[in-house]
Amino acid sequence: MSLPQLIMLPGPTNVPPRVYSAMCKPMINHRGAEFHQLHSRILENAKKVFQTENDLFVLTSSGTGGVECAASNFLLPGEKIVVPVGGTFGERLAEAFRTYGASVVPIEVKMGSAPTADQVRETLARQRDAKAVAVVYNETSTGTTVRELQKIGEVAKSSGALFIVDAISVLGGDDLPVDKWGIDVCITASQKCLATPPGLALISVSKDAWRLAERAKPRSEYFSLIKCRKFRDEKMETPFTPAVSLFFALDEALQIILETGLERWIGRHKKASAAYYSAFGKMGLGFFAEEGSRSTVVIAINMPQGIAAKDLRERLRTKYGVVVAGGFGSLKDAIFRIGNMGIVTPREVLTTISSVGAVLEDLGFRGRSGAGIEAALPIVSEI
Amino acid sequence: MSLPQLIMLPGPTNVPPRVYSAMCKPMINHRGAEFHQLHSRILENAKKVFQTENDLFVLTSSGTGGVECAASNFLLPGEKIVVPVGGTFGERLAEAFRTYGASVVPIEVKMGSAPTADQVRETLARQRDAKAVAVVYNETSTGTTVRELQKIGEVAKSSGALFIVDAISVLGGDDLPVDKWGIDVCITASQKCLATPPGLALISVSKDAWRLAERAKPRSEYFSLIKCRKFRDEKMETPFTPAVSLFFALDEALQIILETGLERWIGRHKKASAAYYSAFGKMGLGFFAEEGSRSTVVIAINMPQGIAAKDLRERLRTKYGVVVAGGFGSLKDAIFRIGNMGIVTPREVLTTISSVGAVLEDLGFRGRSGAGIEAALPIVSEI
Repeated sequence: MSLPQLIMLPGPTNVPPRVYSAMCKPMINHRGAEFHQLHSRILENAKKVFQTENDLFVLTSSGTGGVECAASNFLLPGEKIVVPVGGTFGERLAEAFRTYGASVVPIEVKMGSAPTADQVRETLARQRDAKAVAVVYNETSTGTTVRELQKIGEVAKSSGALFIVDAISVLGGDDLPVDKWGIDVCITASQKCLATPPGLALISVSKDAWRLAERAKPRSEYFSLIKCRKFRDEKMETPFTPAVSLFFALDEALQIILETGLERWIGRHKKASAAYYSAFGKMGLGFFAEEGSRSTVVIAINMPQGIAAKDLRERLRTKYGVVVAGGFGSLKDAIFRIGNMGIVTPREVLTTISSVGAVLEDLGFRGRSGAGIEAALPIVSEI
Repeated sequence: MSLPQLIMLPGPTNVPPRVYSAMCKPMINHRGAEFHQLHSRILENAKKVFQTENDLFVLTSSGTGGVECAASNFLLPGEKIVVPVGGTFGERLAEAFRTYGASVVPIEVKMGSAPTADQVRETLARQRDAKAVAVVYNETSTGTTVRELQKIGEVAKSSGALFIVDAISVLGGDDLPVDKWGIDVCITASQKCLATPPGLALISVSKDAWRLAERAKPRSEYFSLIKCRKFRDEKMETPFTPAVSLFFALDEALQIILETGLERWIGRHKKASAAYYSAFGKMGLGFFAEEGSRSTVVIAINMPQGIAAKDLRERLRTKYGVVVAGGFGSLKDAIFRIGNMGIVTPREVLTTISSVGAVLEDLGFRGRSGAGIEAALPIVSEI
């Protein structure tokens, strides 16, 4: 018998009670007036959160489905796309485009570092026929954010390339004004900073992106944006049955975000991340991401020598009811990761910092938990 | 202020309160022990409902995503597939395979009729290199079910073709013993006879189907069955973030079905459909599907002359809170359709029959509502 676990994962995340209540609204006809209103409001509010006036669509799929949607709609087989790869999700993005026949030019990025505008400029100078640049804004596997995203966009656009951003884990949790930064295609998912259960992906599409999409028949029916546009324009519907209950949930979550104010919603993530970095730094822990590229939404912490990530996570979960993530692939035992997404209040932050500190001490780490908490307190109180 | 609408659509359908409660269980880690148990139980129970020992996967997508999964995994570009087409979903099935480069040999079926084993045999005799036969078991757009499905399977298998069945709208609502009928790939979705909100597709895969799937790299990452198998085998996980809340819902719905007993669950759909056909027949209405091919789960009723489907549906919805569907495409104004799926108790059936009767009389139809209800009563009482 205990309270629900605190899900401090980089997605899925804790879901607000209001969102759960909305999710259980009685079923409606997905081809009827109630759905049209719901759908219309979601698109309108999601555009505010994306800070875009571009078209926007909600797909019934995980975020990876959103990436597949981008990979299958804009490029013809053989066309070139530049993709910086510095972790699992960069690889996944590159792989999605390869699957649909694009010629992927990867930019190798050291894990924990972020790609720079200069790297992209140099690559584009050698690949003048590149049709697009696709970037993972926040590499969830390493806790690294691309701080030069806007500059990379300028570089891409100035050489006539489409600018595609995988913002799955970060939209709503850090600055990302889609139109201001010239992002043609921006992808996110419901279960990250939007505080909704998983199962929906969101994708925005600029006029330049439509021009590419309109050149050929989409290679996927399920992810066809042309179809999505047609059904939205004609009836405010989706081509195929949408996950109605998750639409209810997303609708409520977007309203919560806008009631809070987008700047404040994003600001909480920033402040909370500052608290995490400050606290764990003071405790004597190191971070996987380089300073200056550290994520506001995924705090990737190096495991202290002699302590297994598995033990830390297991004890945190069973003794404190706090769930954090391990590393991906080669980083499996080297790091643990805290998701700082969606519901970000002083309670989640303090509980996580203090219980991680306690478990590490239990496991023999001679850190300074008290000093960590102390460092965090003034920041936490401002969240 | 009123009770929730009665959603008598061919999907989505009414959702049991127990399923809604389950859907709102607190979020869990989709890479943790709780999810492994949930996932494992779902697969085990879904196999019972499919009556199969084949592999089975749950995809985070609508049913059309399940069809795209089948279209992208088994055939190589240029390979032949025979697809009977007698309505919107037959067309959609054919189109999905075309999108992935298959050479589709359609069998034209008159709308309201079902394809026969003889038709498939004749076609296969001319198309000896056909790699597969794909059939929509229940054509939702016309309320027509393929009563020779088992025979068609025998014909397909005896000429070495893979047998793929789109059972999206019907699995759980009519006989469909997947293994006994030799179905290699069977697809369904959560929001039909499984009484779960939309957003999940289920697909079963036989050994013969795996042999075809293993020949080449999947053309979709998101729908890659090889990836699904790998993640299930290694960790009882899904390759990408699943719609966790919908998994909770599906888990509960499957438990309800098995507590009820599969035969009884299916039997309710059969009995209720008998009540619908009997009642509306007595009222003087005609059915779109030919006798002998009529669906247990979608009752497609011809509009009486002079009454618009739109008016019927609107009045039913606003005055009685009962939501039924119109026709698709060319049948838009010619028919209306009642979904008889999932929650099937005497109440839904009687409410629908009596309110349809009342609205038709309001709109000037000189039917015999009372006689209709009277004809239904003895059948309804047995549901």
